[in-house]
Amino acid sequence: MDPSSVKIPPMLDLTADNITPNTLLINSQCPDKRFKYLMAQLVTHLHDFARETRLTTDEWMSAIQFLTATGQKCSSTRQEFILLSDTLGLSMLVDAMNHPKPPGATEGTVLGPFHTDDAIVYEEGASICSEGKGEPMLVQCTLRDTLGNPVVGATIDVWETDDTGHYDTQYEGREGPDCRGILRSTEEGFAFKAVRPVSYPVPTDGPVGDMLKKLKRHAFRPSHMHFKINAPGFDELVTALYIRGDPYETSDAVFGVKSSLITDLNKISDTKISDALCAAKYGIKPGDWLLCKDFVLTTNEQNSQLRVKAAEAALRKLGSRAKLVDGLPVADDLD
Amino acid sequence: MDPSSVKIPPMLDLTADNITPNTLLINSQCPDKRFKYLMAQLVTHLHDFARETRLTTDEWMSAIQFLTATGQKCSSTRQEFILLSDTLGLSMLVDAMNHPKPPGATEGTVLGPFHTDDAIVYEEGASICSEGKGEPMLVQCTLRDTLGNPVVGATIDVWETDDTGHYDTQYEGREGPDCRGILRSTEEGFAFKAVRPVSYPVPTDGPVGDMLKKLKRHAFRPSHMHFKINAPGFDELVTALYIRGDPYETSDAVFGVKSSLITDLNKISDTKISDALCAAKYGIKPGDWLLCKDFVLTTNEQNSQLRVKAAEAALRKLGSRAKLVDGLPVADDLD
Repeated sequence: MDPSSVKIPPMLDLTADNITPNTLLINSQCPDKRFKYLMAQLVTHLHDFARETRLTTDEWMSAIQFLTATGQKCSSTRQEFILLSDTLGLSMLVDAMNHPKPPGATEGTVLGPFHTDDAIVYEEGASICSEGKGEPMLVQCTLRDTLGNPVVGATIDVWETDDTGHYDTQYEGREGPDCRGILRSTEEGFAFKAVRPVSYPVPTDGPVGDMLKKLKRHAFRPSHMHFKINAPGFDELVTALYIRGDPYETSDAVFGVKSSLITDLNKISDTKISDALCAAKYGIKPGDWLLCKDFVLTTNEQNSQLRVKAAEAALRKLGSRAKLVDGLPVADDLD
Repeated sequence: MDPSSVKIPPMLDLTADNITPNTLLINSQCPDKRFKYLMAQLVTHLHDFARETRLTTDEWMSAIQFLTATGQKCSSTRQEFILLSDTLGLSMLVDAMNHPKPPGATEGTVLGPFHTDDAIVYEEGASICSEGKGEPMLVQCTLRDTLGNPVVGATIDVWETDDTGHYDTQYEGREGPDCRGILRSTEEGFAFKAVRPVSYPVPTDGPVGDMLKKLKRHAFRPSHMHFKINAPGFDELVTALYIRGDPYETSDAVFGVKSSLITDLNKISDTKISDALCAAKYGIKPGDWLLCKDFVLTTNEQNSQLRVKAAEAALRKLGSRAKLVDGLPVADDLD
């Protein structure tokens, strides 16, 4: 629609019933079709929420104060809005929609609020953790495409808590990255030394913590290690490995656990030859922990095809009149 | 429902389709029925929004950053989230639902982000503005209930911009309230001196300003003076008088204008006897501006009856299975 052809009627005497179409109408001047569609759906849901709950002025003000406090809790090392999105299941949903997987590919999960951009690149087998951060653990992985070909030269960003359940960013006076690092894959995959992950509560000293308390929800995540894997031609894989048997395995506060990502944690044996070779190669000892995983990446093309197919199915199911442009819904111009 | 009877199933392998019922289920442990209902509707709308728009990871991150910046723009004298609510039509909707009016009562409108709690109580006829803040204007009002009885002893909180279109809180180094004040009503109503309001843009140097630019919307509000009127037994009246003939009268950036609140601004005549008496009484001169209004308050009882009636009608229209408890919807326990 040509913006100059939009007839904005007098915005006067708006009521609880006609405020919504009028807000959509004034926003319809937006030349960016995708943004216009996002705003139209946002305003519609926001107003419907208020109308069907009969949101009170006091509740509205509590929400204003909650959102304000959530924004003000954020810093360069704390992202309370991501935590809110995580605990409301939105992050998991956005990840699932954006990263559908073909059979055999490694599933994704939530990024969480603790990724940073300052991790250091480590050599194969190096430790991403400083001394004394927990029980030593070797992580040994392969990295392939869905046809079984090794993916060489990928960037693997990993991060985890120490044995107290805290990420480096949660310590005051943090001087640099710890318990996080970047690896590059070879034909054999990649390996690094780390510490055994532990379960921990998401930060509860902010507005999201207050919300969880009010909902009588626990704040724990099961023990896990994060991975963010990028390689040219492949869809970014944001995932995590969950240590099998964790008490919070089936009640993760941020809905991130998938069966296929639950992984056995074993001890390096002092009798198995393969373990002895591994121990020798990486300078670890029997009794240290060993976490192994075969990661399988999805190509950009596979991702794109699966995303569009899922979008088409979802719009059909919703009876939506939106059409897909570049794989994303926008309003039908005839609306 | 007894929380101990809620069977929370294993939260594992959640998909774009089943994440919503599972999030509702884990939140269903909340003992506060109203909060549980608000959260259930919020999560449902949030997820539906993401699903039907196929929200991308980049768009989700933009939203996280927008909300964070909005929170961080807030200060003791700036409320960017209220401005967001105002420009999305939500504030107007919440006001309309919470303050329905019986015939003859003065309509309400948006509070806006510029009310403060530090206004001074003034004597009848005093000026709420310091010298040089604009063209002098006398505001002379009556205050009655819908039966025509004067409402005596009400607290009338008023605030407006100066002639540059800025509230006192928008000046750096603000030392105290200006162009705002509190009056008390007598049998005759209330009167105070102020300055002629001017139209002005809402603050555009924050995230909400960026959003309006992207939507190709102007940021102006028509000239107006705010009133917040409280009296025992009466529903709080948050309203404003809009000066007739303002160029933004029909395109208010925050959807606040109602025909019944558009008011003539006249000059004190040098020939009319009533104006001469008024000028003598309040120490103003011919040529100064005069704004008059008969305010009519709604009782708490009238408000309560109208609210419940509107809530019942809205739930019927929506086909909602929620039931009203204390006039507000909560989920049916059998759901």
